Amino acid sequence: MSINSFGHLFRVTTWGESHGPALGATVDGCPPGVPVDAAMIQHWLDRRKPGQNKYTTQRREADEVRILSGVFEGQTTGTPVQLMIENTDQRSKDYGDIMDKFRPGHADITYWQKYGIRDYRGGGRSSARETASRVAAGGLAREAIRAIAPDVQITGYMTRMGAHEIDRSRFDWDQIEQNPFWSPDAQTAADWADYLDDLRKSGSSVGAIIEVVARGVPAGLGAPVYGKLDTDLAAAMMSINAVKGVEIGEGMSAAMLTGELNADEIFMGNDGKPSYSSNHAGGILGGISTGQDIVVRFAVKPTSSILKTRKTITKAGAETEIITKGRHDPCVGIRAVPVGEAMMACVLLDHMLLHRGQVGGQIGENRGRIG
Amino acid sequence: MSINSFGHLFRVTTWGESHGPALGATVDGCPPGVPVDAAMIQHWLDRRKPGQNKYTTQRREADEVRILSGVFEGQTTGTPVQLMIENTDQRSKDYGDIMDKFRPGHADITYWQKYGIRDYRGGGRSSARETASRVAAGGLAREAIRAIAPDVQITGYMTRMGAHEIDRSRFDWDQIEQNPFWSPDAQTAADWADYLDDLRKSGSSVGAIIEVVARGVPAGLGAPVYGKLDTDLAAAMMSINAVKGVEIGEGMSAAMLTGELNADEIFMGNDGKPSYSSNHAGGILGGISTGQDIVVRFAVKPTSSILKTRKTITKAGAETEIITKGRHDPCVGIRAVPVGEAMMACVLLDHMLLHRGQVGGQIGENRGRIG
Amino acid sequence: MSINSFGHLFRVTTWGESHGPALGATVDGCPPGVPVDAAMIQHWLDRRKPGQNKYTTQRREADEVRILSGVFEGQTTGTPVQLMIENTDQRSKDYGDIMDKFRPGHADITYWQKYGIRDYRGGGRSSARETASRVAAGGLAREAIRAIAPDVQITGYMTRMGAHEIDRSRFDWDQIEQNPFWSPDAQTAADWADYLDDLRKSGSSVGAIIEVVARGVPAGLGAPVYGKLDTDLAAAMMSINAVKGVEIGEGMSAAMLTGELNADEIFMGNDGKPSYSSNHAGGILGGISTGQDIVVRFAVKPTSSILKTRKTITKAGAETEIITKGRHDPCVGIRAVPVGEAMMACVLLDHMLLHRGQVGGQIGENRGRIG
Amino acid sequence: MSINSFGHLFRVTTWGESHGPALGATVDGCPPGVPVDAAMIQHWLDRRKPGQNKYTTQRREADEVRILSGVFEGQTTGTPVQLMIENTDQRSKDYGDIMDKFRPGHADITYWQKYGIRDYRGGGRSSARETASRVAAGGLAREAIRAIAPDVQITGYMTRMGAHEIDRSRFDWDQIEQNPFWSPDAQTAADWADYLDDLRKSGSSVGAIIEVVARGVPAGLGAPVYGKLDTDLAAAMMSINAVKGVEIGEGMSAAMLTGELNADEIFMGNDGKPSYSSNHAGGILGGISTGQDIVVRFAVKPTSSILKTRKTITKAGAETEIITKGRHDPCVGIRAVPVGEAMMACVLLDHMLLHRGQVGGQIGENRGRIG
Repeated sequence: MSINSFGHLFRVTTWGESHGPALGATVDGCPPGVPVDAAMIQHWLDRRKPGQNKYTTQRREADEVRILSGVFEGQTTGTPVQLMIENTDQRSKDYGDIMDKFRPGHADITYWQKYGIRDYRGGGRSSARETASRVAAGGLAREAIRAIAPDVQITGYMTRMGAHEIDRSRFDWDQIEQNPFWSPDAQTAADWADYLDDLRKSGSSVGAIIEVVARGVPAGLGAPVYGKLDTDLAAAMMSINAVKGVEIGEGMSAAMLTGELNADEIFMGNDGKPSYSSNHAGGILGGISTGQDIVVRFAVKPTSSILKTRKTITKAGAETEIITKGRHDPCVGIRAVPVGEAMMACVLLDHMLLHRGQVGGQIGENRGRIG
Repeated sequence: MSINSFGHLFRVTTWGESHGPALGATVDGCPPGVPVDAAMIQHWLDRRKPGQNKYTTQRREADEVRILSGVFEGQTTGTPVQLMIENTDQRSKDYGDIMDKFRPGHADITYWQKYGIRDYRGGGRSSARETASRVAAGGLAREAIRAIAPDVQITGYMTRMGAHEIDRSRFDWDQIEQNPFWSPDAQTAADWADYLDDLRKSGSSVGAIIEVVARGVPAGLGAPVYGKLDTDLAAAMMSINAVKGVEIGEGMSAAMLTGELNADEIFMGNDGKPSYSSNHAGGILGGISTGQDIVVRFAVKPTSSILKTRKTITKAGAETEIITKGRHDPCVGIRAVPVGEAMMACVLLDHMLLHRGQVGGQIGENRGRIG
Repeated sequence: MSINSFGHLFRVTTWGESHGPALGATVDGCPPGVPVDAAMIQHWLDRRKPGQNKYTTQRREADEVRILSGVFEGQTTGTPVQLMIENTDQRSKDYGDIMDKFRPGHADITYWQKYGIRDYRGGGRSSARETASRVAAGGLAREAIRAIAPDVQITGYMTRMGAHEIDRSRFDWDQIEQNPFWSPDAQTAADWADYLDDLRKSGSSVGAIIEVVARGVPAGLGAPVYGKLDTDLAAAMMSINAVKGVEIGEGMSAAMLTGELNADEIFMGNDGKPSYSSNHAGGILGGISTGQDIVVRFAVKPTSSILKTRKTITKAGAETEIITKGRHDPCVGIRAVPVGEAMMACVLLDHMLLHRGQVGGQIGENRGRIG
Repeated sequence: MSINSFGHLFRVTTWGESHGPALGATVDGCPPGVPVDAAMIQHWLDRRKPGQNKYTTQRREADEVRILSGVFEGQTTGTPVQLMIENTDQRSKDYGDIMDKFRPGHADITYWQKYGIRDYRGGGRSSARETASRVAAGGLAREAIRAIAPDVQITGYMTRMGAHEIDRSRFDWDQIEQNPFWSPDAQTAADWADYLDDLRKSGSSVGAIIEVVARGVPAGLGAPVYGKLDTDLAAAMMSINAVKGVEIGEGMSAAMLTGELNADEIFMGNDGKPSYSSNHAGGILGGISTGQDIVVRFAVKPTSSILKTRKTITKAGAETEIITKGRHDPCVGIRAVPVGEAMMACVLLDHMLLHRGQVGGQIGENRGRIG
């Protein structure tokens, strides 16, 4: 049992603090023979990198990944892959004024209470910077998936920022990479730009909802009843900083449906595989993938570090006020998109390996045939 | 790694099928010296038992638990506790007509695809009957919590059935045990009764939202970053049959808030401990308990087994229709209340043990002091 | 992490005390589609059963196994298999006089110190009776191995009892089942019979060495560096009651060899696979199977419950003496043979599943080809 | 499940290859508040470092450890500690001639068969260089033990090199650090020096036996039945490169004893704690520490890389011969002493944490009292 690890067979342990010398991911269980180099992992890290536009924190991290082990002559060896990112921008002086005060909505107070340690340098281990390690591990997972199940496509996007939601009738996969918010709806992206400008100027922040979809996932992945695909996805997403809710398919709204509306009817598709009238299930039944799109959604709370005065206490127990200066994200949800994708990649690869271990056969090949 | 186990130190493995000879929970890691007997576990199972009123399935199970190991002379010994429930009502003939057809919204099809096995006797392992094992394990967890942290109180209730939500202004803890729906709002309970009568007569079903609150939980529980308290709660709840979404505190709505609204301000309470202006965080910051109420919410989809004709396919791949006869719940969410409580109990006890293992000291005693 | 579980993907949790209502094994991760019924498991339990001849304890247990879950219509379903054995002979009155005294060489004193519980009914969880659960799980593992890798043969035998060792020049596989000691050497078996008769009459006991060999195991099994095949075998054997040493191949004697004597030279066999001049390695190099016989050996200490007066103390801390009456084995090593075989079966199956999960392909098919 | 991790709560994952850029240990679960810096870890690494005298390989590695995370202002924070050692001496050209040939007694052939990867640069992950990571982790474990249970002392030494064993009548704890072989017997150390000189000149190698003793360990550590203290020690030692056998206390010789000789009699010591007439048990009964010295012994096979011609095959399946040039150890067992100590430290700390998690209380405080 490791509290900084996740995954069954593809097992990722992240390490490192926001202002320490480095952080990274120790990835155990990556299959051998996967073609990979640092540039392939870097590609995914660059998507998450802060400071790329005015909508995210101006903290500038090169976020350059090095592969220290587990890859030889351009392919994985089956031994642990160490992915290290050195911290180049450790301006901890910005944080000096919060050495004794706890930031409301932050983990400052609970880390202090639990561990008796105050890492006042920007949150230490509780910082969203930890998610860079996840993105690196997710990049490796994507390469392994490409080798094992090349039809799988994983895409994340934002569906809501504060009160502003996308219009699903304008949903366009190709738009997602065209705007700084990973919005599949160009018009909403433009609205968000204005809204966020105002928020940033006012020193406030706002929450967001992210959706991650995996297309081309074969039926049969998932390990009931405590390694269900949705269980592991829920844990994966909820473990991301600032996430407060996770939904599969219909999600919380499933509570409002009747049985006949909710249960997706089954037909035979033209490809000789089962086909469904709808996807309220989010591609998962009984914790096992159906072959439909896997749909996960999660809510990211607004950044707690804001330029607004808030009431709080000190370590000495005195009541006081705090304003969190420094370089922060008005909508940290934006940067959660690549993180959600990375977690999806890790969970899917893990279940592919687990499936072939427990049930046998190639990925996509099933023991039970239909037709 | 066991796919039918959950928990780090308090580790529960459930086993058994809906229509096999028995089912149960193998509980490893219960601390020694906890006073417990079968009647104490039975108390919690009786709360979940079906057939108690007209709103739940008329399947009648005695659900009588036997303790086969790990308890000697009225207290736990520190060795594995085996909790077994024999299946007395195995009327599998009701299910004969679904031997070849897959029920829409059910795990029939994915279990078949994955394992190549069709347990047509009511769902086998994928049946909600598995949750009886959870309730038994949760009963044991409650007794251990009572011994270690007697101030902790765990209470579940229903907040929504279909379109009908409780009115929080009428919230009354004492109401919860007074109606068959675990509603904290008596008036809504009456509305639900009428609504469910109609649903049952029409052969339909509906979803629900369950909230589970733990009061009196000390600050400091939770193991970042992949054993966070909210991560483990999300996994625990999502692993329950038919659950499609999980929220902590503000949940999905956190996406709609600004930073200043969301971040709970901190004060000093009269008891010399930190006190908060609000609880958007649901009692968890950075994956660690704050000492506020732990608030988890989950959505249960409507029962898929309904008396409505639905389109589906057979194992042979032929398109057909199905009506699921038999004894089913119009709102399976009702019976999910004790299950959610049980999962909360297991997760909390587990984190109490993990905390004292990793950090040391008694439960409720923290390394970092305030004031 | 479960302290009463072992295995990575084929994961066995044993439960139960020597004088409780029942004991058993909860087996998670058995592949689906393995033909199995209770009689197949019973076959292996009967080999371990006490009271079969005058050389083992006269405690008579029916040791009848029931399969409570995970098997449907004669084959495994992929869900947990619960194997339960009820305790029918619970004559705990024999043990009444040791309620307060600790038996030297027994776990009585350490269980008391650790857990604060004294299960005076014959050792409770620390009794060798726990190994019945292992044999049941091993029986299931053997059936799964038969389905996945039918060439594998697992055989245990005794090589030493006290000062009396077998003569390897008389080694005969067929002899093993022909004598009550699982001796591959008929003449030594006859000597042991006389020796043990004397021991039994004198109320003493003696230790033994057991060797377990797996033939037909394909190259490539084992997961370096902490899931090495030899690492897992060492843990598996050392976890058996009364075991004090474990050796692989040459074992402790490897310390006496020079490099040129120890390193098995490699040739090409007639079957187109690598062939070795000798097997000092015990079939394992770098923690991975070579395709040679896997050879494990372990030492079982003499039974501590003897009819000789020994000095000890009471719970109250008073010095006293003890004679352990009751029904005991003069050479408990005899009954350890089927237990060692069972552990070998569990470890091998586990590594077959792990291998196909992590590396892919069928068992016996390797990624790296020679020739 | 991670195959490159060990430990329950103090969980160490090692990573890195002999000739890659770096190697190290990701240590999760170290308690917070342990005073530690790089120099403290370096101290233990320096003991293992090769090239210190003519008896070990002349490969020169600075083996300088860096702490990349988990330590802040001189103490552990409770978050993962990353211990990295860069490889400065990567002279892989020495190994060029073994690109296609498999070295007898090495993991070359099994890694190739399993993973389909040949890391010809000195063994890659299977190299004994991996043990540097263990020693680093063990150094951290020692500091944590010092904080939690300051009376514990862990000492390793060599008891046998080939045919030459120490004379226990000359055993002297103070001698161990006085000779290059960690021998507790000065006279045998002198004999070994001559013997090893001859071996080195002849290009041969020899095996060894190492004993590791932990003094001052409180009674009560160990988690039956699959997390027994001896089980975990057996796995820990057997996972070290080249180890072929592990013994606890009397070890394999227990097979030769009678019950009355083997079972250590119990008295009351002057300190009010149980005291034993002897220590055949090696300080462990039923998998739980007794308070006596914990005694573990393991055999290290002779180095397989020797300057003697040996028969082998190529990847293409051709029979050939090989001489392994390069810088190697005539008795690799010497360097295994600090590794054995490190594993003992990790296992003991892990069980201290596990014990306080599962049973509660301070280390050394027991639930069951005697007297």
